Amino acid sequence: MEQFKRIPAHIGIIPDGNRRWAQRNGLRKEDGYGHGIQPGFELYRLLLECGVKEATFYGFTKDNNKRAKEQRDSFTKACVDAVELLSGKDANLLVVGNAESPAFPTELKKYANRRVCFGKGTINLNFLVNYDWEWDINGLAQNGRIKSSGIPRMDLIIRWGGRRRLSGFLPAQSVYADFYIIDDFWPDFKPSHFYEALRWYQNCDVTLGG
Amino acid sequence: MEQFKRIPAHIGIIPDGNRRWAQRNGLRKEDGYGHGIQPGFELYRLLLECGVKEATFYGFTKDNNKRAKEQRDSFTKACVDAVELLSGKDANLLVVGNAESPAFPTELKKYANRRVCFGKGTINLNFLVNYDWEWDINGLAQNGRIKSSGIPRMDLIIRWGGRRRLSGFLPAQSVYADFYIIDDFWPDFKPSHFYEALRWYQNCDVTLGG
Repeated sequence: MEQFKRIPAHIGIIPDGNRRWAQRNGLRKEDGYGHGIQPGFELYRLLLECGVKEATFYGFTKDNNKRAKEQRDSFTKACVDAVELLSGKDANLLVVGNAESPAFPTELKKYANRRVCFGKGTINLNFLVNYDWEWDINGLAQNGRIKSSGIPRMDLIIRWGGRRRLSGFLPAQSVYADFYIIDDFWPDFKPSHFYEALRWYQNCDVTLGG
Repeated sequence: MEQFKRIPAHIGIIPDGNRRWAQRNGLRKEDGYGHGIQPGFELYRLLLECGVKEATFYGFTKDNNKRAKEQRDSFTKACVDAVELLSGKDANLLVVGNAESPAFPTELKKYANRRVCFGKGTINLNFLVNYDWEWDINGLAQNGRIKSSGIPRMDLIIRWGGRRRLSGFLPAQSVYADFYIIDDFWPDFKPSHFYEALRWYQNCDVTLGG
């Protein structure tokens, strides 16, 4: 394995481009999400290999629920399938999202907003499911803390699919994060994407705004 | 003037790289900030020319106050000088920041956290002075709204100085913004930087997370 001078403690993952990937491959938009699961597990293996202690994956959001029903069903199923596969591996999983809304998958309610240990734990994995940035920060108005307070500050955010924005991804935890954009679509994930991001990150200075 | 298909309604400006510019030009770090004022007014002229309705400039933050006294004095003076110059032009100015802290410049207290009209108004300009993202969102816990609630969502954020992060810049208003990075340092501002960002932005799709 390549050696890095500095490994981010916590990486945010925005796995975008599933629908564009599907269309480019002659599939229906909703067929893209299922092809995003295997890349997640390839990345999981690399995170462990590199000793990354925590990662947060952007599943789906309240905003995404505005899409067509076929797409909603498909990205919801992909999230449920991903967690079921993960439950057979090692991870401390925290699912964060609005579980009181009907858009939150029933199958994942038992994991919502509390950390559970799968296997030997080994890595903290956070998964945003039916997440809504306003719901999150409005926790401050309700009980003095954001609803995602179990998720710490991110050091690096990697976004696939070429778009250069956060799309509501954890506004409080992303304030000091360095952003790395991969132009390829998420289902076309390759290990070199991840190594490229780490290679770039090791030379970023870290000032935490100072 | 070049014609654009779509002009962002609200642009965020992160004018970074003043200290690195100073050092590269054989000056002391603190000498960089004064060279950041003129570029701000060049950009102001272009914003009016292109019909941008609102812009928010990142002045200095609570985090920046960790720097050496010479630097603190210098960036504080640059913010005060900028507002004094602006007061002779057209703008609806809103200064947002923690004015109860001793780091907030006395000269700007009269503008703090309320919008004032200079000349014919024409453009909304927001200026973050002694800004602190935690202070901002903690307004939710205090009275149910963020302290920067007078500043709307940003469409485009342009950062000079090559760094690919927000550094605490308005976490709630940046959730859907597209980020454009200019590698040149802020005191080396050129109109082409701004046009380049607008040219890129006009082809971004706008989904607001959907």
